[in-house]
Amino acid sequence: ASSPLPFTTGLPLVRNISEIPQDNYGRPGLSHMTVAGSILHGMKEIEVWLQTFSPGTHTPIHRHSCEEVFIVLKGSGTLYIASNSHGKYPGNPEEHIIFPNSTFHIPVNDAHQLWNTNEHEDLQVLVTISRPPVKVFIYDDWSVPHTAAKLKFPYYWDEQCSQETSKDEL
Amino acid sequence: ASSPLPFTTGLPLVRNISEIPQDNYGRPGLSHMTVAGSILHGMKEIEVWLQTFSPGTHTPIHRHSCEEVFIVLKGSGTLYIASNSHGKYPGNPEEHIIFPNSTFHIPVNDAHQLWNTNEHEDLQVLVTISRPPVKVFIYDDWSVPHTAAKLKFPYYWDEQCSQETSKDEL
Ligand SMILES: [Zn+2]
Ligand SMILES: [Zn+2]
Repeated sequence: ASSPLPFTTGLPLVRNISEIPQDNYGRPGLSHMTVAGSILHGMKEIEVWLQTFSPGTHTPIHRHSCEEVFIVLKGSGTLYIASNSHGKYPGNPEEHIIFPNSTFHIPVNDAHQLWNTNEHEDLQVLVTISRPPVKVFIYDDWSVPHTAAKLKFPYYWDEQCSQETSKDEL
Repeated sequence: ASSPLPFTTGLPLVRNISEIPQDNYGRPGLSHMTVAGSILHGMKEIEVWLQTFSPGTHTPIHRHSCEEVFIVLKGSGTLYIASNSHGKYPGNPEEHIIFPNSTFHIPVNDAHQLWNTNEHEDLQVLVTISRPPVKVFIYDDWSVPHTAAKLKFPYYWDEQCSQETSKDEL
């Protein structure tokens, strides 16, 4: 195998998920943990996250050209998703109920948003994406044209890591 | 998004993992379920499996050029892994204890084998691979030369699906 990046040296091969750092990255009600990541662990083709959304919190409306698979570990909520096949903006999204032990994937470039719509319980999901680190285009609402969605790169949790990596390289 | 394959039409976007078919694919003690797959669900860049190994059972010694991330949901066991950087055959593998709520990834092309070495409990893992469907090279033992490892493609669980797809296409 290729030799590890300097930044990843010292991380054990088998890691205890309970000991992986988590943070809300400035988004109240979010807990994000990178279980296996491109910047932290040298992953090149897949990245795995563990995320918890407190009641009433949600992702932005967004799209990305990578594949994304969700597994709902705990709680429930709503997936809003709009196919990008037609039209200049996402438009009215489909609503799908998500529930414990359910799984779904987001077709490439479809605008989507995940909500914890259960006011009594956290929503915990395991997420896998391809082609890390993720490049996310954010929509303020469902009528924003695809061409006006704003690129956020690096994304929230990759920002901090990128800065740390840069500092380490000084 | 691209239109779904004919074979995937009719599958709901959000699926109950408890209702996904599982099988041992001729390997006693194994339970394999494709949570999100290339053949079943049209995934192109990632695939997610849920696998259970009964006590004493294991994967073959094998390598693949895709990335693979494991999350141990239940049980414990041993990961054997040999770096392929040097030498003509895997040689003596490193042993790593794996435990509930642990995670690890397999560097590309490293020969590896997962054992449920806990005689009292099933080992349940969630697995993500890149570049599906997986192309696996199998070693009878750790001294088989890399060049003599045998390609098994399609792999156990993709074989049946491929046949079903072919039948559907007639
Ligand atoms: Zn997304
Ligand atoms: Zn493997």
